[in-house]
Amino acid sequence: MDEKRTELDRLGEFGLIDHLTSKFTTKQASTTLGIGDDAAVIRISDTESMLVSTDFLIEGVHFNLMYMPLKHLGFKAVAVNVSDICAMNGKPEQITVSMAVSSKFPVEALEELYEGIQIACEAYGVDLVGGDTTASYSGLTLSITAIGRAETEKIAYRSGAKENDLLIASGDLGGAYVGLQVLEREKQVFQANPNIQPDLDGHDYIVQRQLKPEARVDIIEYLKELDVVPTSMIDISDGLASEVLHICKASKVGCRLYDEKIPIDGKTSMTAIEFNLDPATCALNGGEDYELLFTISQSDWDKIKGNPHMTPIGHITDAADGAYFVDKNGSAIELRAQGWDHFEQ
Amino acid sequence: MDEKRTELDRLGEFGLIDHLTSKFTTKQASTTLGIGDDAAVIRISDTESMLVSTDFLIEGVHFNLMYMPLKHLGFKAVAVNVSDICAMNGKPEQITVSMAVSSKFPVEALEELYEGIQIACEAYGVDLVGGDTTASYSGLTLSITAIGRAETEKIAYRSGAKENDLLIASGDLGGAYVGLQVLEREKQVFQANPNIQPDLDGHDYIVQRQLKPEARVDIIEYLKELDVVPTSMIDISDGLASEVLHICKASKVGCRLYDEKIPIDGKTSMTAIEFNLDPATCALNGGEDYELLFTISQSDWDKIKGNPHMTPIGHITDAADGAYFVDKNGSAIELRAQGWDHFEQ
Repeated sequence: MDEKRTELDRLGEFGLIDHLTSKFTTKQASTTLGIGDDAAVIRISDTESMLVSTDFLIEGVHFNLMYMPLKHLGFKAVAVNVSDICAMNGKPEQITVSMAVSSKFPVEALEELYEGIQIACEAYGVDLVGGDTTASYSGLTLSITAIGRAETEKIAYRSGAKENDLLIASGDLGGAYVGLQVLEREKQVFQANPNIQPDLDGHDYIVQRQLKPEARVDIIEYLKELDVVPTSMIDISDGLASEVLHICKASKVGCRLYDEKIPIDGKTSMTAIEFNLDPATCALNGGEDYELLFTISQSDWDKIKGNPHMTPIGHITDAADGAYFVDKNGSAIELRAQGWDHFEQ
Repeated sequence: MDEKRTELDRLGEFGLIDHLTSKFTTKQASTTLGIGDDAAVIRISDTESMLVSTDFLIEGVHFNLMYMPLKHLGFKAVAVNVSDICAMNGKPEQITVSMAVSSKFPVEALEELYEGIQIACEAYGVDLVGGDTTASYSGLTLSITAIGRAETEKIAYRSGAKENDLLIASGDLGGAYVGLQVLEREKQVFQANPNIQPDLDGHDYIVQRQLKPEARVDIIEYLKELDVVPTSMIDISDGLASEVLHICKASKVGCRLYDEKIPIDGKTSMTAIEFNLDPATCALNGGEDYELLFTISQSDWDKIKGNPHMTPIGHITDAADGAYFVDKNGSAIELRAQGWDHFEQ
């Protein structure tokens, strides 16, 4: 047999999706946008659309139950999907939770998981409306679908950034990745000597960023109050570099991103340095911050200027000018995505 | 430590979902129905609703790649979710496909899977609008979400059956289960001696029922043309007995189901007998036929009478009269669900 065998890691996650779905076309009049953004867009009336986003969370790939309590996992599973709806400038309303679980879990463990799910549903005002529950042979797999709603003309796609637009990030970045380093270190200490209690003192903020990220529904509300419609938007799940490049690719533009502008919390910086990591690199490549990255027209700048939750970190250029990160010395370095790619492990 | 540990199989699949979600309430005005039917119902306008249904398909639990070709699996994954939208008397429009896959699969295998998904999308007129793709440590897991639309007042819930309504089944039943027996037998022959080719001669129909079940979108179209709105509906995924009992429980009614009325194809009966199985038992407890089971008001009987795709199999009674299966000798046997419960394996 000389059957062709192409290994999955040849294509990477995004390449694989593109490859497998390239022949699909859409036919329903209601389908406004299919694959390729944070959520699908389905028209439901002359002015409104439904947003649908779905994510897998797999034990050993996306989470490690050794340091991720089940209640936190439940919260995070909802938050990251709500974040995808926010990333379209939409309002999350419903969620479905499917769970495949091996018999190693007792009912009490799943009660904890659902307690976290419930807390997140209440925090974000979303209703749990369905799901599927089944046995699995290996650990815990969650599949979440979030459903939201938006005024059709205010939906922010990845593809709408224009030359001279400002690039804005919400909150602060890199914390989730540095928090993960702290948790990994304590796990190794514990594995070497189970009598030593984990030492997370002084790391509450960044550990929380990793274990209990918040979806920025508040940013969507601020933008609405300020009457600002982002020209493009994405949530920062895979690291700032990867997300900026998604916007540049979808919008067919370039960008300049400034090291000194990236919002990084003091505790994130200090701990990064303790681990011999460059804080900016943690923000660029770390991932899992679930902040929002968006572009606004310069004419909207006055409306958000001074808002402590939103930081201008760069601007959009012509595609021909490329996508560059400008470091503290003023050197421009071409941006590359080095986010999480599960197929490359 | 005296921590309480309750094993999952104590509750069973449905019991577990009920238990974990009992404290959840819904708050969004748009949420018409949450957990507990084939699909969630979300109001999108004064007259229309969106239907959302989601299912896991897990290697080793829901399918066996030893006899389920990946193209068939792709088709089936879409069909069973489209079937859930049909079961609400809705029109399927979009689908999301999430896939967790181990590196044992080459890209070519996933191309086959997506070819099957594409054929089903075209057959049922649904658009693939999103999904998530990730690595897994064990085999292949698919999570599919189907989205459909319905006139709100024509949605068929499980809970609407009334005393004296007629119980109708589409197509024929038991074939998928008997087809599985044929596939299992050939698998064992192959395992004993890999040089023997599988002998599926004369079993095309029932093997097809197992490997490539069709969602009955045609039944939904017939009902629309005939101007019949079922008083209740469910799809037959877990066996007729289990589904009838779901309707009885949700509608707070009883029923009489007649052995001699159950539509069973000749090839299903013959092969069942070859395996020493009672054909009616295969229909009652076998599962995976993905036909529709529904109730209609007696006043609608004239509209569907003589339709070869719909068979009256019994009628609804008062709850106090219980749910009974009447065998060919006229003996009434209390109905029990013996469908697939993955936690009880």
